[in-house]
Amino acid sequence: MQVYHTLEERFARISSIEDSIGILQWDAETMMPQGAADSRSDQLATLKGIAHELLTARATSDLLDEANQDSDSLDDWQRANLREMRRIFLHAAAVPADLVEASSRAVSRAEMVWRDARQNGDFALLLPHLSQVLALQQQIGQAKGQALELSPYDALLDSYDPGLRQATIDPLFSELGAELPGLIEEAQERQKELPVIQPLNGPFPVDDQRRIGEQLMKAVGFDFTRGRLDVSLHPFCGGSTGDVRITTRYSETNFMSALMGVLHESGHALYEQGRPEKWRRQPVGLARGMSMHESQSLLIEMQACRSWEFVSYLASIVQEAFQGEGAAWSPENLHRILTKVEPGFIRVDADEITYPAHILVRYKLEKALIAGDLQIQDLPSAFNEAVKKHLGLTVPNDSLGCLQDIHWPGGAWGYFPTYTLGAMTAAQLFRAACQADADILPGLSKGDFAPLRAWLRANVHAKGSLITTDQLLVAATGRPLTAEVFRTHLRERYLGC
Amino acid sequence: MQVYHTLEERFARISSIEDSIGILQWDAETMMPQGAADSRSDQLATLKGIAHELLTARATSDLLDEANQDSDSLDDWQRANLREMRRIFLHAAAVPADLVEASSRAVSRAEMVWRDARQNGDFALLLPHLSQVLALQQQIGQAKGQALELSPYDALLDSYDPGLRQATIDPLFSELGAELPGLIEEAQERQKELPVIQPLNGPFPVDDQRRIGEQLMKAVGFDFTRGRLDVSLHPFCGGSTGDVRITTRYSETNFMSALMGVLHESGHALYEQGRPEKWRRQPVGLARGMSMHESQSLLIEMQACRSWEFVSYLASIVQEAFQGEGAAWSPENLHRILTKVEPGFIRVDADEITYPAHILVRYKLEKALIAGDLQIQDLPSAFNEAVKKHLGLTVPNDSLGCLQDIHWPGGAWGYFPTYTLGAMTAAQLFRAACQADADILPGLSKGDFAPLRAWLRANVHAKGSLITTDQLLVAATGRPLTAEVFRTHLRERYLGC
Repeated sequence: MQVYHTLEERFARISSIEDSIGILQWDAETMMPQGAADSRSDQLATLKGIAHELLTARATSDLLDEANQDSDSLDDWQRANLREMRRIFLHAAAVPADLVEASSRAVSRAEMVWRDARQNGDFALLLPHLSQVLALQQQIGQAKGQALELSPYDALLDSYDPGLRQATIDPLFSELGAELPGLIEEAQERQKELPVIQPLNGPFPVDDQRRIGEQLMKAVGFDFTRGRLDVSLHPFCGGSTGDVRITTRYSETNFMSALMGVLHESGHALYEQGRPEKWRRQPVGLARGMSMHESQSLLIEMQACRSWEFVSYLASIVQEAFQGEGAAWSPENLHRILTKVEPGFIRVDADEITYPAHILVRYKLEKALIAGDLQIQDLPSAFNEAVKKHLGLTVPNDSLGCLQDIHWPGGAWGYFPTYTLGAMTAAQLFRAACQADADILPGLSKGDFAPLRAWLRANVHAKGSLITTDQLLVAATGRPLTAEVFRTHLRERYLGC
Repeated sequence: MQVYHTLEERFARISSIEDSIGILQWDAETMMPQGAADSRSDQLATLKGIAHELLTARATSDLLDEANQDSDSLDDWQRANLREMRRIFLHAAAVPADLVEASSRAVSRAEMVWRDARQNGDFALLLPHLSQVLALQQQIGQAKGQALELSPYDALLDSYDPGLRQATIDPLFSELGAELPGLIEEAQERQKELPVIQPLNGPFPVDDQRRIGEQLMKAVGFDFTRGRLDVSLHPFCGGSTGDVRITTRYSETNFMSALMGVLHESGHALYEQGRPEKWRRQPVGLARGMSMHESQSLLIEMQACRSWEFVSYLASIVQEAFQGEGAAWSPENLHRILTKVEPGFIRVDADEITYPAHILVRYKLEKALIAGDLQIQDLPSAFNEAVKKHLGLTVPNDSLGCLQDIHWPGGAWGYFPTYTLGAMTAAQLFRAACQADADILPGLSKGDFAPLRAWLRANVHAKGSLITTDQLLVAATGRPLTAEVFRTHLRERYLGC
C-alpha cells in the first residue's frame, strides 16, 4: 500500500505539471503577446521535459513493479488506477528520449513550413519535412508497438484512444464507407424537394453572440465557476482539470458557426467538468480516450443541438437576440441550415453526413503510410483519388487536398479515426439516453439539458478511466460500438426514414 | 567551462519554471474562475517544489564548487553570473525543506485569517497565526544568517535586496525620520495658502480610462508585443521575463488613481522589459533587488509623472479624453491633486511625503520583532505609538493600524524598507538623469519619455545583476545611496525651496 501511495503522489505531481501546461497553452492561444512566443516555448519544453523525466524515471518503473506484486491489497479503484499508471508509463518509457526530442523538433519545423505550403498549395515544399515526421512516427510506432505488443499503427492509435485497434475500426469504417456515397446522394436529392434555405442576414454583433453563447453554455451545464469562454484563432477545449477553458471565433456575418462551435466545445467541457472531483490528479480520473471525448462534443453539438426539439428552442433564443423575424428565422429554416448536406473539400467545414467521408480518406492513407504501403511522395495523388471515391469531388489543388490539415505535419498520426468513432459513439449513447429517460427530448425543446446531463454524468463522465471504452459502452448502451445506430441516425435525419 | 555551462542549463530550466509560475499567478489574479483555486494551488506548489529541488540538489552544490575552482577560465559576465547563482543557491539551501513547508503552510493559514481579522479589527484572532509566522521567519532568518554570516534580520533583507543591511538603512532612515514630521507639517501649512483643490467630477467611463492608460504606457515605453494590461483586485506587475503583465483597478468616480497606478506598474515593467534579452533565463539577468525595482516604478510615477513638465502634458490628455474644461482641469489643479499632502492611516493611500513615515513605523517594529525585542502581542500598542510619533495620528482601531498590510501574515519580513529606499533611489537616479541629459524634462512636457528611458536603459536596466546596487548607484549618480537628494526633492516639490 505504501508503494502504491507513493505512486499516487508521483502521478499527482505529474498531473499538476500537465495542468500547468494546459493553462500555459491556453494562454498562448488567447492572451499571450506575440513577442513572448520564444520564452513560452522554453517554459513548455521545460515543463514537458520534467513531466517526462518524472514519468519515465527508474523509480517510477520500480514502484510500478512493486505495486503490481502487491496489487491484492488494493481495491478496484486503486487497481484501475495502477493499470492506467502502467499504461501511461509504458507509452512514455517506450520512446527513447532522443527520439522524443527528434520528433518534437521535426514537428516544429514541419508545422512552420506547412503554413506556407498550405497557403501556396506547394506539397513539394512540405515533402522533405513531412517525410521526416512520418519516418519518426514510424519509429515511435515501432518502439511503442514493441513495448505494448502491438503493430506500429495500433500503438499510435492506442496513444490517443486506449484499447483502440485497427481490427475494430476496419469493419466499422468499411460498413460506413459502403453506405455513405449513396446516403450523401440521396440526402442531396431529398434536399432539392425541400423549401429553399433562406439566408440569415447580419451583421450579428459579437457581444450578442457572446451573450447567447454563454446563455446556452449555462443551459448545457457548463460550470462558469470552473471554466471560461474566450476567443482564439482555432477553437478548442483546454485548460486544466477543474478549470476548463473553451474558445470560439466570431464572425459578424454568421453567428451559427461560432454558436455551434461553442456548443461543441461545451460538450467536451461537460466531460472535463463532470469527472469525479476526488479522482482529480490521478490517471484513473482522466478522460477515457479521444473517441469518447469527441463523442461528448458531438453528442451535444450534433445529436442534441441539431435535434428538432432543440432547434425550436434555439429559434426563440436567436430571434430575440437578433430581432429575427419571418420565414428565415423559423425553426424549420434554422434546422435546414443546421442540416444542410453539401460535399466540399474542407474537412472542418463539412456537414454531419459528409464529415465521415473525409475521415475514411485520411484513415486509409495514414494507415498505408505508417505501414510503408504508400510512399509519402505519392500522397497527393492517393489523397485526390480517395476524395473522388468517397466524396465524388475532383480536388483542384493540394491546399484543398492533402495539405489542409495540421495533423500529419503536427505528428498526430492515429488521431483522425477518433472523430468518426466519436460520431458513432455519440449516436449510440444518445439513443440509449433517450430510451432510458423519456424526459430528455422534451427537455431539449425547453433548453433544459438536466435530464440528458444526468444520464451522461452517471453513464460516461463519472466513469473516468475506471473501465474500458468497450465496458463503458456495453454498460451504457447494451453493446460495444456499432456503426448501425449512427447509420440509422443519419437515415432518419437526412432521408426521413 | 563545461561545468559552468551545465550550471547555465540548470539555471535556465529553473528560470523557465519560475516564468511559468509567474504566468500562472497572473492568471489566478486576472482570469481564473474562482472554483479553480485549489487546483491552481496544487500546480503552484508542485512547480515551486520542483524548482526548489533543482536549485538545492546536491548536484547544484557540487557544480557550483567545481565551477568556483575553475573561475579563472570565465569572463566577467560569467563570473558575475556564477556569483549570483551561488547567492540564490545559498539562500535556498540554507532553509531545510521542512521549514520551507511549515512556513508556507503557516503563511497560507495566516493570510486567510488575516482577511477576517482586518475586516473586523480583531488582532486577537490573528495573534496565534501571526505569532507562528513570526517564529518561523525568525528560524528562517537564523538559518539563512548562519549560511550567509549575517544577523537574522539582515539575512531576511538580503532575500529581497542582495547586499542590503540594517547598518545601511539605519542612518538613512534616522536622518529621514528626524526631518519628516516637520516637513509634513510645513507642507500642510503651505498647502493652505494655495488655491483650494477643485474636484474632478465623473463619471469617467472605464473604456476611456483604459485607452488613455494604454496611450501613456506606450509613451512611457511599454512594449505591448511583450506585455499586457489587465484588471485585478490588487494592482501588480507580474508575468514572466519577456512577457510582462501589469494590472490596475478602475473606479468610475476617480480616474487618477488607476492612471497613476498604471504609470507606477509601467515603471516596474520598463525595468523588466529593458534588461538584456540575451541574459534571459540566467541569474545575472535578474533585477538587482526590490529597492532598485521600486525605484523604477517610483521614478516614473513620482519623479517623472508628478513633475510640472509631465502634468502639463497629462492635462491635455485627460481634458480631451473626458471633455474636461475649466479650472478643475488646469495643469495647476491637477498638480495640486497629485501632490496633495494629508497624513492618513492607510499606507497604500499615502502621498509621497507621508508614505516614508509609514515605512519607518514598520521597519522599526519588524526589526524589533525578529530580534525578539518586541513581543508579538504588544504589536498593536507599539504600532499605534509609532504612528503617533511619525504621523501625529491616533489609530482608532487595528484595521487602520497593524492589521492593514498583508506583508507580515504573508511572511514578507524585511520587505517594507525597500519601498522607501526605492523612493530615495528614484530621487537620486532622476536627478542624475536630468543633469546628464537636458532633454529629459522638456521631453516629459511633450509626453516624450525617450531621453529618460535611454538613460535608464543604459544606467540601470542594462546592468541586470552584473554589479551590486552600490556599484550601480556610484556609476550612475557618482555616489552610493543617500537620503539627501530625496529630502531635497521633497522640500523643492512641497515647500518650494
